Amino acid sequence: MRHTVKKLAILGSTGSIGRQTLDIVRAFPHRFEIIGLACGNNISQFKAQLHEFKPRFAFSHSPGEVPAQVQTSTMEDMASFPDVDLVIIATTGRAGLNPTVSALRAGKSVALANKEILVMAGELLTGMAKQTGSQIFPIDSEHNAIWQCLKGEDSAVSRLFLTASGGPFYGIPHDKLNNISTEDALNHPTWKMGKKVTVDSATLFNKGLEAIEAHWLFGIPYPKIEIVIHRQSIVHSMIEFEDGSVKAQMSMPDMHLPIQYVLFYPQRLHNKNIARLTFDEMRTFTFEPVNYESFPCLKLALEAGKKGGTYPAVLCGADEIAVDFFLKKQIGFLDIEKIIEKTLNLHQNNANPGLEDIIEADRWARETAMHVVSKEIKCQS
Amino acid sequence: MRHTVKKLAILGSTGSIGRQTLDIVRAFPHRFEIIGLACGNNISQFKAQLHEFKPRFAFSHSPGEVPAQVQTSTMEDMASFPDVDLVIIATTGRAGLNPTVSALRAGKSVALANKEILVMAGELLTGMAKQTGSQIFPIDSEHNAIWQCLKGEDSAVSRLFLTASGGPFYGIPHDKLNNISTEDALNHPTWKMGKKVTVDSATLFNKGLEAIEAHWLFGIPYPKIEIVIHRQSIVHSMIEFEDGSVKAQMSMPDMHLPIQYVLFYPQRLHNKNIARLTFDEMRTFTFEPVNYESFPCLKLALEAGKKGGTYPAVLCGADEIAVDFFLKKQIGFLDIEKIIEKTLNLHQNNANPGLEDIIEADRWARETAMHVVSKEIKCQS
Repeated sequence: MRHTVKKLAILGSTGSIGRQTLDIVRAFPHRFEIIGLACGNNISQFKAQLHEFKPRFAFSHSPGEVPAQVQTSTMEDMASFPDVDLVIIATTGRAGLNPTVSALRAGKSVALANKEILVMAGELLTGMAKQTGSQIFPIDSEHNAIWQCLKGEDSAVSRLFLTASGGPFYGIPHDKLNNISTEDALNHPTWKMGKKVTVDSATLFNKGLEAIEAHWLFGIPYPKIEIVIHRQSIVHSMIEFEDGSVKAQMSMPDMHLPIQYVLFYPQRLHNKNIARLTFDEMRTFTFEPVNYESFPCLKLALEAGKKGGTYPAVLCGADEIAVDFFLKKQIGFLDIEKIIEKTLNLHQNNANPGLEDIIEADRWARETAMHVVSKEIKCQS
Repeated sequence: MRHTVKKLAILGSTGSIGRQTLDIVRAFPHRFEIIGLACGNNISQFKAQLHEFKPRFAFSHSPGEVPAQVQTSTMEDMASFPDVDLVIIATTGRAGLNPTVSALRAGKSVALANKEILVMAGELLTGMAKQTGSQIFPIDSEHNAIWQCLKGEDSAVSRLFLTASGGPFYGIPHDKLNNISTEDALNHPTWKMGKKVTVDSATLFNKGLEAIEAHWLFGIPYPKIEIVIHRQSIVHSMIEFEDGSVKAQMSMPDMHLPIQYVLFYPQRLHNKNIARLTFDEMRTFTFEPVNYESFPCLKLALEAGKKGGTYPAVLCGADEIAVDFFLKKQIGFLDIEKIIEKTLNLHQNNANPGLEDIIEADRWARETAMHVVSKEIKCQS
């Protein structure tokens, strides 16, 4: 049986999601062709990828390092190149925003692993996708789960139970978290992920972004989104339909599965490398409501999402700066929430922003967050 | 908005499923018309139903009791009456077999709550449905869950996790069950059901029937069916697809939901009378493999299913007799498995039975089981 070959552009190919995407390509070598790869700063790994997958186009922050036989390209050009069938946005932070816009404007379908992009510009991007008929496929395990649960269902969603592992500090009183080290925060109990998203998982900021992302991807109003702590990270989310029936999607915590679902959608293929859920031994799943008071970053994120306008862009910009300082060990864990809150409080909202306004709000937020750090946080230590 | 009115025939209207079906009709009075009702022996309740729902046709084992203004009918005629859109088979045991055949032959869709029918004649009935284009909708919570999980999915099923509460005696050593009373066996931990099915749940015989039913309804081979003990009865079953992704359907243990799903399929409607699953407090779900050695009735049922032919009909006939004797307190709880096993061992299989052969095998099994009781079981006590 012959299959069509899907042509991919992978932006952020040396990151966690990028590498796992290439694992799936490796497992099904006849089903994919890599048209373009883009990376940030991990040049040695990128060179190995270029050698292995021989893309036509490459983008790197250090263009001098790209071998002569590969054509350099911007991420925007790569994402809208006519031959590309699917653009995988596996960048972190706002770096993927312009390439996503470029892909959607060109009518390309986009597989989104980068949640900040939809958080910052959800209304604009979903509007663009509608206009050009392109699709936004979620890679994030929760949104991928929701998407799977909605497959074949016409009914309105009455509730989304967005599951959260709770991260490494779940159950520790908030005031005991001040001396948390960067290493502690990077030690996630169930998922292996990039550093930024692992810290965002420890503050539950990440879950706030996911609520906003779910709101835009599936049109679910905020009052219908409930965050449920599920420590085992097996149930990736649940949808309650109008009649009260709940569907859940489950699997071992391994991003290869949602990535593969996106790459082959709507087909499901066997992949022996992906571990399966078993009930050969006793398994216990727990579910409990989240305590918002213990996770101020989650509260801030949800409030910014509900306010809309440029607030979500400011939220993301401020968090990127704060987490960066935390990863460099220049601020404490609890400073992250202070920086985000102070930056949001200083912001003047633009209720109906265009793309340029969103980019400007993000720039303003980074500058303001840096200012907050230097004037208020570092002075204290 | 005007809706079409669905015309129903409900066979077994005074039983647990029949009454709950009428609850749904009551909750949506403009969406249904009751064409026919059939009951066994609960005449006083049946008269009240006839008064309330004013069907055109009625069937009762005591026809003299049907009020003069209602036309009496056989169940077979009612099930194939041209005006009927959907036939609900909520009878117990083999009583619903002929009406189901009659409905399917007439091209009517059938909502099946009675699992013995598909167990006895799964190959014949699913073949008939294919021929006439009629559909068999499962009411049983597990099969309804599987059906919901398969909605919109084209992928092959790689495993079915058929969940089982384990019944009232789960965890009690098998040899301690000899003095179990009828009252103990009728005290199911999570579900309120009819007496026969409650006893079948206590022996896990019921779960064996469900595996056979799932095999016929969804074409799932037996080696792909795993029985998983889930004490809380919230996850009604789970399907693993080719890629390893698992979908589960959940709800509070209340048959109103699967009944309503069948009645409105593919629509989902809000019904304030159906309690919703919440995660407002800590919830724990457990899953563990079933211990087949503790549940001989389950083993016998699965073996009969795998052997096929007339074995499943014999299985059902023998169980009906055994459970009937147990409910009348004439035999012990552990005698049920002995009667079924001895009857199956005496049977000469017909590998490709027609409907008459199946009915004859059932008759033979009842006669043989009675014989086993009188010669071997009652003599011992």
